[in-house]
Amino acid sequence: MTETKQTISRELPPEPTLRRLPWYLAYVSLLRSRHVDYVSSTSISKELNVDASQIAKDLSVLNIKGKTRIGYEVAVLEKALKDFLGFTRQHNAVMIGVGSLGSALISDTGLERYGLNIVAGFDVNPDIVGSTIKNVPIFHINELPERRNAYQAEIGIVAVPVEQAQTVADTMVAAGIRAIWNFTPFRIRTQPGIVIQNTSIYAHLAVMYNRLNAQKQQ
Amino acid sequence: MTETKQTISRELPPEPTLRRLPWYLAYVSLLRSRHVDYVSSTSISKELNVDASQIAKDLSVLNIKGKTRIGYEVAVLEKALKDFLGFTRQHNAVMIGVGSLGSALISDTGLERYGLNIVAGFDVNPDIVGSTIKNVPIFHINELPERRNAYQAEIGIVAVPVEQAQTVADTMVAAGIRAIWNFTPFRIRTQPGIVIQNTSIYAHLAVMYNRLNAQKQQ
Repeated sequence: MTETKQTISRELPPEPTLRRLPWYLAYVSLLRSRHVDYVSSTSISKELNVDASQIAKDLSVLNIKGKTRIGYEVAVLEKALKDFLGFTRQHNAVMIGVGSLGSALISDTGLERYGLNIVAGFDVNPDIVGSTIKNVPIFHINELPERRNAYQAEIGIVAVPVEQAQTVADTMVAAGIRAIWNFTPFRIRTQPGIVIQNTSIYAHLAVMYNRLNAQKQQ
Repeated sequence: MTETKQTISRELPPEPTLRRLPWYLAYVSLLRSRHVDYVSSTSISKELNVDASQIAKDLSVLNIKGKTRIGYEVAVLEKALKDFLGFTRQHNAVMIGVGSLGSALISDTGLERYGLNIVAGFDVNPDIVGSTIKNVPIFHINELPERRNAYQAEIGIVAVPVEQAQTVADTMVAAGIRAIWNFTPFRIRTQPGIVIQNTSIYAHLAVMYNRLNAQKQQ
């Protein structure tokens, strides 16, 4: 058991690394648009304010090598980052809760460029069920099991009111969803083996308001 | 100097606390909707999987007291959390970049309930400039300084393409913006005193894809 766990944890890049890699990708894409050919960890470090040795360590998960005194080839690094991060493959996802935030996320075509393909939305509101948003059909939540299966969607995005978050998550897991992207501030609990990512955009507002107030009082 | 810094840091709740408080708020609002009158740190702890002593410490910033063996009054705790987090006051904000994500965020009425009042959008695209989204007018970015001043907006939301993030941030700060909510994966740099919050929703996708893949390979 212990050995298996060690093997897995050695293979899995730590979450902070996975969160920093998209920063490097953003910067490298910017460089490519400016026709820059090579970039070093040192120059990424200066631009992004991340320690150069940390960057080199993060980039080591990519299995590409930089050249001494020249650095990484920008185009190669960009492609390696996109591939590694899964942005070049399409991942089918369903949206649960097609209210204000849910329909906004369906409309955000940016998600497609990062490999997220929202194939259907689910809600209980009769005004929404049966409609489409940017060609994405909205079904009744009761249809989730069969539709999810037909679409082979593994990712479920939760954008329901907070008091329904846990119930909806249980329904999703029962329907075969393997990863939950939770946009509610509720801490969803589920069985081991189900991936959960929390994106509580409103929590960031709380931090911003507080720091803004603190600045004023100085 | 040292003393001043210490005073400030004593008053400012740490960022992890500020990020957890909205979780408690979500749970407490759920309890209120279920007509529960009292809640203890212990029961919040069980529900949210956060250490009870951590919860008690986090809630101590609110200056309200729980009753021994009964806990906090749900309605009082909910109001105290909302007030402390700034969700009961309106904060004027401008949206810079009204593409897919920017217009989606303007359409998300959920932000209003968390005290964010998006008063105007700014873009360079002639197809968008001059239009409105949910009654929010979209202006040319050149109009930012005077419009920001007229609206007294202190918060600027960045939803531009990554290669424009830094330039746009500089323009915003010059126009009097005091807090930047950055939705691009680019690490914006700015002068001290400007509050920056990064919400890189696409970075969460990278973590989710990676963990989902790892689950499959087990």
